[in-house]
Formats: sequence, C-alpha cells, structure tokens
Amino acid sequence: MKAIAVTPGAGVPEVVERPVPDPSPGEALVRICRVGVDGTDYEVIDGTHGGVPDGDDRLILGHEAVGIVADANGTALEEGQYVVPTVRRPPPGVETNAYFERGEPDMAPDGEYVERGIVGAHGFMAEFVTSPADCLVPIPADLAPMGFLVEPISITEKAIEHARATRSAFDWQPASALVLGTGSLGLLTTAMLTETLEYDRVYCLGRKDRPHPTIDIVDRLGATYIDSRETPVSEIPAAYEPMDLVYEATGHAKHAFEAIEALAPNGVAALLGVPGDRTFEVDGGHLHRELVLSNKALVGSVNSNRGHFEAAVDTLSALPDWVLAEIVSGVYDLTDLERAFPEAIAPVAAAGGGSTVRPDDDTTIKTAVEFEDI
Amino acid sequence: MKAIAVTPGAGVPEVVERPVPDPSPGEALVRICRVGVDGTDYEVIDGTHGGVPDGDDRLILGHEAVGIVADANGTALEEGQYVVPTVRRPPPGVETNAYFERGEPDMAPDGEYVERGIVGAHGFMAEFVTSPADCLVPIPADLAPMGFLVEPISITEKAIEHARATRSAFDWQPASALVLGTGSLGLLTTAMLTETLEYDRVYCLGRKDRPHPTIDIVDRLGATYIDSRETPVSEIPAAYEPMDLVYEATGHAKHAFEAIEALAPNGVAALLGVPGDRTFEVDGGHLHRELVLSNKALVGSVNSNRGHFEAAVDTLSALPDWVLAEIVSGVYDLTDLERAFPEAIAPVAAAGGGSTVRPDDDTTIKTAVEFEDI
Repeated sequence: MKAIAVTPGAGVPEVVERPVPDPSPGEALVRICRVGVDGTDYEVIDGTHGGVPDGDDRLILGHEAVGIVADANGTALEEGQYVVPTVRRPPPGVETNAYFERGEPDMAPDGEYVERGIVGAHGFMAEFVTSPADCLVPIPADLAPMGFLVEPISITEKAIEHARATRSAFDWQPASALVLGTGSLGLLTTAMLTETLEYDRVYCLGRKDRPHPTIDIVDRLGATYIDSRETPVSEIPAAYEPMDLVYEATGHAKHAFEAIEALAPNGVAALLGVPGDRTFEVDGGHLHRELVLSNKALVGSVNSNRGHFEAAVDTLSALPDWVLAEIVSGVYDLTDLERAFPEAIAPVAAAGGGSTVRPDDDTTIKTAVEFEDI
Repeated sequence: MKAIAVTPGAGVPEVVERPVPDPSPGEALVRICRVGVDGTDYEVIDGTHGGVPDGDDRLILGHEAVGIVADANGTALEEGQYVVPTVRRPPPGVETNAYFERGEPDMAPDGEYVERGIVGAHGFMAEFVTSPADCLVPIPADLAPMGFLVEPISITEKAIEHARATRSAFDWQPASALVLGTGSLGLLTTAMLTETLEYDRVYCLGRKDRPHPTIDIVDRLGATYIDSRETPVSEIPAAYEPMDLVYEATGHAKHAFEAIEALAPNGVAALLGVPGDRTFEVDGGHLHRELVLSNKALVGSVNSNRGHFEAAVDTLSALPDWVLAEIVSGVYDLTDLERAFPEAIAPVAAAGGGSTVRPDDDTTIKTAVEFEDI
C-alpha cells in the first residue's frame, strides 16, 4: 500500500510503499479516506517537533484522519462505519498505563505516550491503518468528507473545557473572546466561538492584508478581524475591549504573556502553541500583579481524548457547511503532494528562484490528502 | 473610642480617637477583640497599596479581625456571639452589585468594591466597628483567641479552591506541594497542606538561616525547608521533585515565572503576591511550551468570600494548637504598637542608628493588636 512518510528535517514528505498492516486482537483495520495537514505536520517535516519510532528512519505522517472500517476483526465496530482515530497510544512495549486506563491519555506526561504521525508511532497517511477499536470514534457518513477536522476541533474542545474548568469556582459568564491566529485552528475556533459556543463578541488576530480569504471567513462569522501590525495584543483592551477568553494558536512566545494584558478581570487564556526557546524582556511584576489582583488564569493545553473527539463530532455537525468549505482550501490525492503540503514543497520548488521563504500571502488555509473517495 | 490609623506613606500607624459608630439597619455593632497584622498592612502603611476613603486623609487599618457582637441591632446575630468580618464591601453610594449579590465580592473587578482597612474604607483596628450582618461570620468562642487568622486562612481556602478548579477537567490527585514564602501566610498554608489538605509531601521555600522559628515550624509539620539561596525555584524539580501544586506567597515577581518550571506535568501554580513593576528577561518560549506540552496552569487569586471564611473557621479548628501558637509570635495592646508593627516602627527606631533596613533575621512571624480581652 502507499503511505506518506518523512525523514524529519528533510523538508519534504514522499510517497512510500508499505505492507498493509494486520490488525491484532482488539484492533480494527481501517481504510483511510482523508487526512488533514496542519502546523504540527510541518514541524515534524522540519524536524523541530516529534520523532520517528525506535529503529525506524522515516515516520509515516498524519494525525487528522477519517476512514472506514475495512475489517472489524471481531471488535464491536461495524464494517463500512466511518471512524476518526484518536492520536495518542501507550508507549512501545506497554499495554496501557493509568492515563490511558482512565481515558485521559491527553494528560499523560512525556514518556507515557506516543502520538501517531507525530512522535514515536506511524501516522494515518496510508491506505490502511490498524487501531485499537476504542481509539476509533464513529462519525456519521454525511460528516465523513470533513471528518479530518474532528481532530483539530477536538483540540479546541479540550482547551475550552480546561479553560472553563479554571473558572468553575465562580459564576463565570464569558461574552468576549479573542483568538490569536488565523491558521486553520484559529479559524475553526473562531467559528466554534460564534456558532456553537455562542460568545457574544469574538475577535480574531492575524497579520494579513485585506482582501484575504481568512479575513473573509472572520467577517462572515460576524467576528472582528484585528491586524496585529496595527494593534498589538497588549493594546487590544483599549482599542476594542478586554477579553473574557483568549485562545492562543500562534506559537508566538510573546503572546502567552501579552495575553495576560488582553484579559478582562476573571478571564482565562488558553495556550495551544508550541514555540521554541526564545528569551525576551517582560514586565514580570506587572504581569504577576495583574494575574493576582484581577483573578486571571493561564492554562496550557495539548492533545485531546476520546470524549473531546466525540464532542468534536457534534460540533462538526453544528458548524455551517460554508465555513468548513471555506476553511478547507483543497483536498489532493497522492499525485499532488506539492499542493497538499504547499509550505513544505515551496522551499524546494523555489530553490532555483532564490527564495526559500514560505509564502506569507498564500491563500491556502487547510489542506488534506485523499487516499480514498468518500 | 480608640482606633489605629495611618497616613499612607508616613511609615507608622498611630492611635487616634474616633466616635463609636452607629449601626444602620441591617448592620450590627461589633466590639473588636483582636486584629492581625500582615504584609498588606505594611504596604498600606508604606503607601504602596490601597488608599484612604474619599474625603479622608487617614485610614483606619486592619482587615483580619475577630470581635463580639455588642448590638445585634435587630439582625439575626446574637449579642455575645464571636464573629469575623469579611473584608470587601460595595463602593460608596452603591448598595450592592452583581458580585456582592451572588456572594462573590472576591471576584469583583477594580472599582466595584472597597476593602476595609486596605482601600477606600476604614478597617477593623478600632474598639468598635459596624458591619452588615451578612458580612459577619460566626466563630465558636474557643476559636476566638486565634480568630484573626480566619481571614488569612480564607485567602488560602480561595486560592486552593481556584487551583483545584483549574484541574477539575481531569482526574488530578496532587501529592506534592511547594509553598514559596515563610511569612505567616506561607506558614499557615504549609500547615494546611500537611494537616488538613493531606498532601503527602510539602516543601516550603525561604531565605532564612537555621536555627529560626519559622524553619522549626516547617520541620515540625513534617514539611521540607528549602533555602532559596541554595536551591533556586527553577532547580527544585531536579533537587527535590516536580510539584503538583505551587503556592506563591512572596510577591517576588520572578517566582510567578519560575513556578512554571517547578511544576510537575498537569500541575498548577496559585499566585498570591502583589509585586510592583519589575522588568526582567525570561525564556518565554520555553515557559510557553512547558505550559502547553505539560498541561500546566497558573491562577492568580485575591481576597476571599464568605464561603471561604466559613471553610477557614473549620480549618482553624482542625489545625494543631501548637502551630497556631508558634505562628502567632505576639499579641500586643494599644500601648505597644512598636511591637505590634515591628516592621513599621523599625526604620524610625533605628533612624538614629543609621539603618532603615527592616530586620531580615527578625524572629517575628505574626503579630496582632488586642483591643479587648477574649
């Protein structure tokens, strides 16, 4: 079968041949339909995050998948059922651990998990994959074409759940929310905030010029686009309003700190980005005092568990079709990897032209690779 | 009647004469017995925090009080009942607001409250005070001598409640806790963590040399004293262990950031200190990434509400007598203000000797002013 693999650091994914895997007892065989591409994939491609399984030199990519059960293999799944696989698995040689046993692999610390397609385990960009049946979340057939969005939506389900939890000791009624980042996760979250979470006022911070399809989506959702080049995060409360919720999806390290200043009293900032080391000055006394005197909170969030995937299926069904169609800018088959991974291919394609800078004005929002028609 | 007032910035409190206040409908008249002195009082004395009521030039100090109902004034309270007053009240001219109505004045933002003895309202260091009956929390007579500890304990009740809330979206079973600070709040919290909250392993960070009464308390509680001059906060995980909970009670701005590094995966740091502005460098990329990839949280906490005072009364009754006796290093009457406020008096007393530095090796832990025998 065909799969998409990468040598971390090589900069480009490639099509490889692999044997169709055999499901072990308790596992099902899944024919993969579509797999989304996100920023984490580019970090894996670049070699800045994640890693290959022990003893391997290449990693099969892909952690945002939707597929169809090809062989239920005696599990409770039904053949022909569309499913979305969760991402974390116990580490090699370990059947389970306390985090997996209580259904919270997303809270497992480093070393207590692998992540398919990211670190230590092959991903879902293959014609067939096997997975324990309890890591396969059923999805209705009508949602399957966009099923690869369930994983990114589940990331926000978890982050919002944890952010709400931080505020659960009092009567918190958030009305304003600021999303930092206009990538696909930022846009999906903006759509969730306006459409399903029913925040009254939603803002989305980016650094793109109008006209741009991402800004069109923000506008059409009834959210307010803020250009970070005109209004830095710390000035947003004065220019717009202080925010009950800030959702950081940029990986820009300063945003974690500036978010404290963007918050309204009793607000919470959920941090999702994974920046590299970066040293800079902060007025730490001011930020510390702000956190205390205004009862503010910061909460980091990574990965998601089966409950978040199930919530994400419901969210996917509730989001307007148009916003999904606009966010998914292209679905490409294996013959078209340059378009499926535009940010990975760009440096190579442009090598003769002298530029290796990834295009900033690209209109790509979210791509997916298609292995099988839905 | 006699009261203790301060002109913020003058550096010393003084005894003043005031008329005995008249309770309005819904208020009781309380004869004050004892009032604790804490770091916030010194900030008010120094003029770095808080402020006098509009139209006044001096503030009556005191926010940690215990008294006895002298005139129930038709309220449901009983005369002779010991009570502890809560601290926040609606701002002048406002009868109530949404925060007070739902019993959460501790979550009110700046401008929506005053704090008795701290900002905008006279405090409890007076022979008599009036208070709305619903801001007076009954306390059994046998606890009354230490009743002025209910307010500081309530601060920790709230902070721990909010810290636990941040971790309520998953199965959090904390076992290790680090208290930053060996002031009276740090020691009370250390005692709560070992005695009533039943953390398995508790650490307390200070910068004092042995032998010292505060370190003796830490030892006797079965907690581990860490000298910050030998082991900075960020090195504590390697030298001891990563912490499920960090409780910051130093007001040292760097601690808010170093706490992130001291935390175990899924841990939370509760911030209580109120530092002034202070700019310094941080590896913000590292801290941001740590928060995200290890699901860590930071939560600021200020003040406390009636529910926290009620919980604090229970905690006070559960703490061993010896620890309360050791933490309260002295109770002084109005003729002995120099000993009741050793840190405020010290610069003046030492002025002839050339030193205005507050004594670092002082063995004072917690003092209180006594207005009436209990």
